[in-house]
Amino acid sequence: MTSAIIVAAGQSTRMGPKTDKLLLQVAGRPLLAHTWNRFDSAPCIDEIVLVVRHGMQGALAEIAEASKFTKPFRFVPGGKQRQDSVWNGLEALSPSAQIVAIQDAARPCTSLALIEATIRAAREIGAAVAAQPVSDTIKWSDDGAVISRHLDRSRLWAVQTPQTFRVEIIRRALQAVREKGLQVTDDTAACEIIGQPVKMVNVPGPNPKVTLPEDVPYVEMLLRSQEK
Amino acid sequence: MTSAIIVAAGQSTRMGPKTDKLLLQVAGRPLLAHTWNRFDSAPCIDEIVLVVRHGMQGALAEIAEASKFTKPFRFVPGGKQRQDSVWNGLEALSPSAQIVAIQDAARPCTSLALIEATIRAAREIGAAVAAQPVSDTIKWSDDGAVISRHLDRSRLWAVQTPQTFRVEIIRRALQAVREKGLQVTDDTAACEIIGQPVKMVNVPGPNPKVTLPEDVPYVEMLLRSQEK
Repeated sequence: MTSAIIVAAGQSTRMGPKTDKLLLQVAGRPLLAHTWNRFDSAPCIDEIVLVVRHGMQGALAEIAEASKFTKPFRFVPGGKQRQDSVWNGLEALSPSAQIVAIQDAARPCTSLALIEATIRAAREIGAAVAAQPVSDTIKWSDDGAVISRHLDRSRLWAVQTPQTFRVEIIRRALQAVREKGLQVTDDTAACEIIGQPVKMVNVPGPNPKVTLPEDVPYVEMLLRSQEK
Repeated sequence: MTSAIIVAAGQSTRMGPKTDKLLLQVAGRPLLAHTWNRFDSAPCIDEIVLVVRHGMQGALAEIAEASKFTKPFRFVPGGKQRQDSVWNGLEALSPSAQIVAIQDAARPCTSLALIEATIRAAREIGAAVAAQPVSDTIKWSDDGAVISRHLDRSRLWAVQTPQTFRVEIIRRALQAVREKGLQVTDDTAACEIIGQPVKMVNVPGPNPKVTLPEDVPYVEMLLRSQEK
């Protein structure tokens, strides 16, 4: 069985105070409803675990009701860091879950083809991540004021979600992170710690995440164009 | 005196065959006309040099006419690589030019405030570039298939244009690049070679470049919203 974990426990600090970006109305429904819908309607997904902040459950239950979602879902509380939230999500998976696709709740344009491709790759080598070649010129700066050095763009990839794993692998990787008292910013970094290779699955179209208020109009435009 | 070089000599290979992205109609006028307009209407800019591909001059002269541009401008032919095109642009500056802002022709949303800020910084330390903190998680991959290592995102910046310099500094930097037979992907990398520090000027809003066909709707949306 294949499960999805939608991580909806972030603090949205970059969206400004008192704005819960996940509940923002975008293209006719809350942002999170679009993301959830991608996984609810994906034939390859059997269940959905949503990792949520305290107090969000009511709003999310309403979303599920209004959206007529059909896949089994449950809510679990978020942790202190993203890695703790994912851990809580893993704890809540069905015992028969073999593959898990972990998704940012604020990334609502992820296509079915991409979800499927990461699942296929995770079945093959254990861990996979949606990735795009970096199109910007990227510099390293030690102080945030002056360029320290140039990086070879052809070797750089932006990784997104889904990040998809064999369940036992991501459990083992995050266990190692916890035991060593480390912090990782994404789940593929946890795999690095146990020496698990992570396959990059090239994302064909845009798969943006809403981080700043200025990201909203672009995402709205994409969602509306995909509805057509 | 302060000059601008607009680099319009790229091959647009990523846009598909036979598409000249710079002449695409976007928000009511050719893409390049928007970029040119940002510099034509900037009080801090005294002249504009456009580095163009062979055969583009006629279309560009029509754009200037239709747009009623008022700043002096001239066309110079592009070179083999971007660094050669910029070199040709530098050769065509007025002798009294002290500062030069170098701009991608396909980056049409650059604000006046940003142009001014890079000019101020270039006056102070000699070289400046529009830059944004990277918001994606970035990985290094040696083979383009599997992640090789994680990079600390807080140290990574995406650099854009304008890239703005004291004229004598960028001349010296590109001269060094040519003498050593090197290739650089942007003009700040040339500064690295002569040990010239480059100040990063934080870009407040979106400043995208049209690279792929899918970039066009977003840029169109931004341009229309800025017209309001």
